[in-house]
Amino acid sequence: MEPVERLQISVIGAGTCSGETAELAYRVGKQLALNHVVLVCGGLGGVMEHAARGAKENNGHTVGILPGFDISDANPYIDIAVPTGISHARNILVVRSGMACIAVEGAYGTLSEIAIALKLGKPVIGINTWDVSPDIIMADTPEEAVHRAIQQIRNG
Amino acid sequence: MEPVERLQISVIGAGTCSGETAELAYRVGKQLALNHVVLVCGGLGGVMEHAARGAKENNGHTVGILPGFDISDANPYIDIAVPTGISHARNILVVRSGMACIAVEGAYGTLSEIAIALKLGKPVIGINTWDVSPDIIMADTPEEAVHRAIQQIRNG
Amino acid sequence: MEPVERLQISVIGAGTCSGETAELAYRVGKQLALNHVVLVCGGLGGVMEHAARGAKENNGHTVGILPGFDISDANPYIDIAVPTGISHARNILVVRSGMACIAVEGAYGTLSEIAIALKLGKPVIGINTWDVSPDIIMADTPEEAVHRAIQQIRNG
Amino acid sequence: MEPVERLQISVIGAGTCSGETAELAYRVGKQLALNHVVLVCGGLGGVMEHAARGAKENNGHTVGILPGFDISDANPYIDIAVPTGISHARNILVVRSGMACIAVEGAYGTLSEIAIALKLGKPVIGINTWDVSPDIIMADTPEEAVHRAIQQIRNG
Repeated sequence: MEPVERLQISVIGAGTCSGETAELAYRVGKQLALNHVVLVCGGLGGVMEHAARGAKENNGHTVGILPGFDISDANPYIDIAVPTGISHARNILVVRSGMACIAVEGAYGTLSEIAIALKLGKPVIGINTWDVSPDIIMADTPEEAVHRAIQQIRNG
Repeated sequence: MEPVERLQISVIGAGTCSGETAELAYRVGKQLALNHVVLVCGGLGGVMEHAARGAKENNGHTVGILPGFDISDANPYIDIAVPTGISHARNILVVRSGMACIAVEGAYGTLSEIAIALKLGKPVIGINTWDVSPDIIMADTPEEAVHRAIQQIRNG
Repeated sequence: MEPVERLQISVIGAGTCSGETAELAYRVGKQLALNHVVLVCGGLGGVMEHAARGAKENNGHTVGILPGFDISDANPYIDIAVPTGISHARNILVVRSGMACIAVEGAYGTLSEIAIALKLGKPVIGINTWDVSPDIIMADTPEEAVHRAIQQIRNG
Repeated sequence: MEPVERLQISVIGAGTCSGETAELAYRVGKQLALNHVVLVCGGLGGVMEHAARGAKENNGHTVGILPGFDISDANPYIDIAVPTGISHARNILVVRSGMACIAVEGAYGTLSEIAIALKLGKPVIGINTWDVSPDIIMADTPEEAVHRAIQQIRNG
């Protein structure tokens, strides 16, 4: 891996999800890997795990910022685990660690992350997610979401 | 002050606000004080300051959980200042420190706090705020908001 | 209570302690109360509880910055509980919330707090505690410790 | 990179250091890389930078858990940056993210990290560092420190 000039993008979404959402998350992770972007996520299951799997199966790099204390809480597709022990406050670290955020569906936790990202002025790309602000860029496909996220960072 | 059996309720809202919103916040703080409820907030200006002023001018008690490092960042109506130094992550501590949250209008920061409160299963009472979930109890007046918040805690 | 001009001093020490140490902690809390200083601590047992009891039995005010999620984790002598949910990271908030720290004995957790306080340039007064730096002001009695802490803040 | 079975070890030390200490830090980073261990550190200068340089110049992987808000605060040898925005509270995350800690000299910040690591029951290996507890394993050379750290994890 080269130093940090490499892009980092956060993928946010719920810890459990439907098969359809899992597929969307997987394709986000895959597309990030194909673009040599480091995937940052919350490190647990659901959208986080499927996105990380998509990245790892395509030679990407993954980081999991965990709410709990143990590195072993990370899903099997996480390269680097950061066990914060700060519970939900870690959501903010997930957001900060991405130069942009891609939200795949998601419940209240995801909404809190979207709101923090918007407050911090980070680009937020959404797929089937909370439509709470015109500042969220809605994408129709995972591939478009990744494309738009990278574009936002490059133009940022 | 008696020990913690005393209720603690968080008031959330933006750091700058219109005169009309300031009046709503003031009345929330006043009503909390009249009900012997400790007001917890983010300790800065806008809704936080007007609510704290409403409490203090009615012999209430106020706590400010600050994003920065200095006790002196607190507005003048804060009794107890907790300078966290953890920036936006302190939003989550504001939410956790209330047995219920009252949101007065608010921008993205407030939305993140509402979302965290909903995720944690805390009662959220809203006045002119983000209407993102049926789980938020909307109130027409500050007095109703405080009444509903206390009711939710007692029935909780 | 008047606004924040009131002094806030943190008392740090272990969550379990001997009867002798409990007595020292109690006298620290009592002396803070007699000097109208708000006592900030970690809100749990041992030194934290005995110091808070000393304050409350002398009409003082107490704040407990808790590692966990529940207000009810606080010992019975805490007026205001801040359940942070950030585990050991709350130690740093305890230190930041005092204008000075008084360490009563203590184990590794207390050592971490002393080190953070020294790093932040806060006055640290010690009673039978870690003797790791000439920057720690050692006191022979709880009464002397409180006196020295207030003196340090006033001269600060 | 393979998933998390890979070891992660934290290197802690001051943000500025002498040339001699820089050399020690460099050799720690190099030795971690030669052993295929991910180096976690605070991401800034001094010991953190020299250790990360030692790792990167030997094909290692590095993570920087930053106190501030910007990925660009990281030193040039950091692969993955986690800008926490939680200031000194990030020290605890650095400690938690390593299965063991290696302390190279260090001032009060390092002492706080050593104390937290001891409290959490993590192995702490020290090189010319705070000699505050028999629980710290002192090493004479960087190579011995890395060897002892890995040994402690394996024997866990």
